[in-house]
Amino acid sequence: MGTLRILSGMRPTGKLHLGHYTGALESWVEQQNQRNEAGERVYETCFLIADYHNLTTSLETGEIYTHTLDMLIDWLAAGVDPEKSPVFRQSQVKEHTELFLLFSMLITSSRLERNPTLKDQIRDLNMESLTYGHLGYPVLQAADILLYKGNVVPVGEDQLPHVEITREIARRFNNLYQHPILGEVFPEPAPKITKFSRLPGLDGKAKMSKSLGNTILLSDSPDEIAKKMRTAVTDTKKVRKNDPGHPEVCTVYSYHEKFAPQEQLSAIEADCRSGSLGCVDCKKMCAANIAAELSPLVEKRAYYETHMELVKSILLEGEAKARAIARATMQEVRTAMKLGEITC
Amino acid sequence: MGTLRILSGMRPTGKLHLGHYTGALESWVEQQNQRNEAGERVYETCFLIADYHNLTTSLETGEIYTHTLDMLIDWLAAGVDPEKSPVFRQSQVKEHTELFLLFSMLITSSRLERNPTLKDQIRDLNMESLTYGHLGYPVLQAADILLYKGNVVPVGEDQLPHVEITREIARRFNNLYQHPILGEVFPEPAPKITKFSRLPGLDGKAKMSKSLGNTILLSDSPDEIAKKMRTAVTDTKKVRKNDPGHPEVCTVYSYHEKFAPQEQLSAIEADCRSGSLGCVDCKKMCAANIAAELSPLVEKRAYYETHMELVKSILLEGEAKARAIARATMQEVRTAMKLGEITC
Ligand code: SF4
Ligand code: SF4
Repeated sequence: MGTLRILSGMRPTGKLHLGHYTGALESWVEQQNQRNEAGERVYETCFLIADYHNLTTSLETGEIYTHTLDMLIDWLAAGVDPEKSPVFRQSQVKEHTELFLLFSMLITSSRLERNPTLKDQIRDLNMESLTYGHLGYPVLQAADILLYKGNVVPVGEDQLPHVEITREIARRFNNLYQHPILGEVFPEPAPKITKFSRLPGLDGKAKMSKSLGNTILLSDSPDEIAKKMRTAVTDTKKVRKNDPGHPEVCTVYSYHEKFAPQEQLSAIEADCRSGSLGCVDCKKMCAANIAAELSPLVEKRAYYETHMELVKSILLEGEAKARAIARATMQEVRTAMKLGEITC
Repeated sequence: MGTLRILSGMRPTGKLHLGHYTGALESWVEQQNQRNEAGERVYETCFLIADYHNLTTSLETGEIYTHTLDMLIDWLAAGVDPEKSPVFRQSQVKEHTELFLLFSMLITSSRLERNPTLKDQIRDLNMESLTYGHLGYPVLQAADILLYKGNVVPVGEDQLPHVEITREIARRFNNLYQHPILGEVFPEPAPKITKFSRLPGLDGKAKMSKSLGNTILLSDSPDEIAKKMRTAVTDTKKVRKNDPGHPEVCTVYSYHEKFAPQEQLSAIEADCRSGSLGCVDCKKMCAANIAAELSPLVEKRAYYETHMELVKSILLEGEAKARAIARATMQEVRTAMKLGEITC
């Protein structure tokens, strides 16, 4: 069945927080390193810095390069291995836009308007009026995935409609245009439903988010983590130290669920309910567990932060690799559509 | 005020007909050759083969290259001079799609839905459902024009809304992003209202159109022209040769208006009205005038048709020139947006 290729991407929003880690980065690294019984990699992973997607919600581009480098350092610190997985910016591989334009002809605008994720976004962002590019977000995403012939797309349930659009576009292209040797140019990528752990913000809001200022950064020191943790929202009914608490409504407990060892977790739950554990101590444990989880990243980050030329060259090399794949795909597309080869 | 640059384009629909000639090609060549009192060219002209725009109304691409070469030969035969005016395919200059994507973020989709030309097209083509790419047609057109910093756009009245969208996008970009040296990257192109002569089809329909089979091709021989002319619809009230006729309702007369010398035109009008001129003779004169108008194209066409390698190399050279301009513009765009240079 050939190699399975996964394209995953993030928008360059700067330094990453714990939500990015549990929600994506952790599984990216897992997929990158997963091997079968024969010791071969199960997935070819490609990691996209989706700077064009950023434009759908913000036209501020001044910080985009700094944000890109900050994010890339977090990726590398968390275990993204550029030898295994090319890392690259969408804006540096022109073929993304070529395929976007071609795909824009293969889907109706009413189909895009029915996209439920888009409706949510418009409501969340309180956007007065949708740009044409924002409406086409799933078309660009289809181009991102299919340019690299991604055949597996790890998604949460809520992202299924986007994958469905990618599949529709791939089918439509394959029906309309055949390559004389390959036949179908594009795979029809299969969604791989993945349960991403969503971390609530320190303020108890559903998600960590830079703009809400409720995050723990992957680059926060143990002291900073402890300090931020002290501000975390807990069970408001547990007013005094020895009041009984309700872990199921406590933000800190949802961090414990993710970062505490199993035996400790059971003890915390019992002791919170009985009132023998106070929130101050509980938060200290939580901060320590998070700092321990992040400790492998510290040394790597320090190295990359003092070797910025290396970080930049990793990006350029990733982009050269991505471009080679993207160009090969586009030549196939051009052959299938009889649009003529392009030589530069 | 610097040079005025005009970008004009046609979709590659194959051999051109008289409607293309009077409606566009004739004035393209005029603009190309126009010189001021100092003997300098007034306009820098660039001629675009809009193969991507073709996809908005047809996804059949199999014939596109043949159609491109047929059309290019007609351009060259009619006086397009590739030394003066680069000729190139949209699909061979990737920067069109890059700028299209960036511009897609600068305009709302509701603005595009209000585009009156689009509404007409949907009605004319009886299209069940509009593709996303078709909705973005004016955005791609803006990218086509602004990529070459076209500052004059020759248009008929009905195309004014498109130019207005191009101007809006240019303004929006210039407001959001400044180049450190140039300041504004894009000109705000001025529409140049041009009265294009619309030729009716031989069947009396408002326009010549390949799909209606009512055309005289630029490549038709004098015999073919005469033969087709015999089928042309005239004043239906003029049944017998010497019945008085009404030139104002006659298709043939509208060709005379375009191709007959002034004195002949007055005589035709008078003789038709008096009944002294029969339609058969009138059509013979008309066919002869059209053949005379097209005679300068015959030799040139014959030359290019027997030198196809030259035609192809003209196209490749035009594309190299266009790409150089397009890349320079995109580097300015990238600098202004701080998206990072691209080296290949
Ligand atoms: S003891 Fe821990 S789990 Fe219980 S409410 Fe306090 S912080 Fe939450
Ligand atoms: S005589 Fe000529 S102008 Fe008059 S109706 Fe006949 S074709 Fe038309």
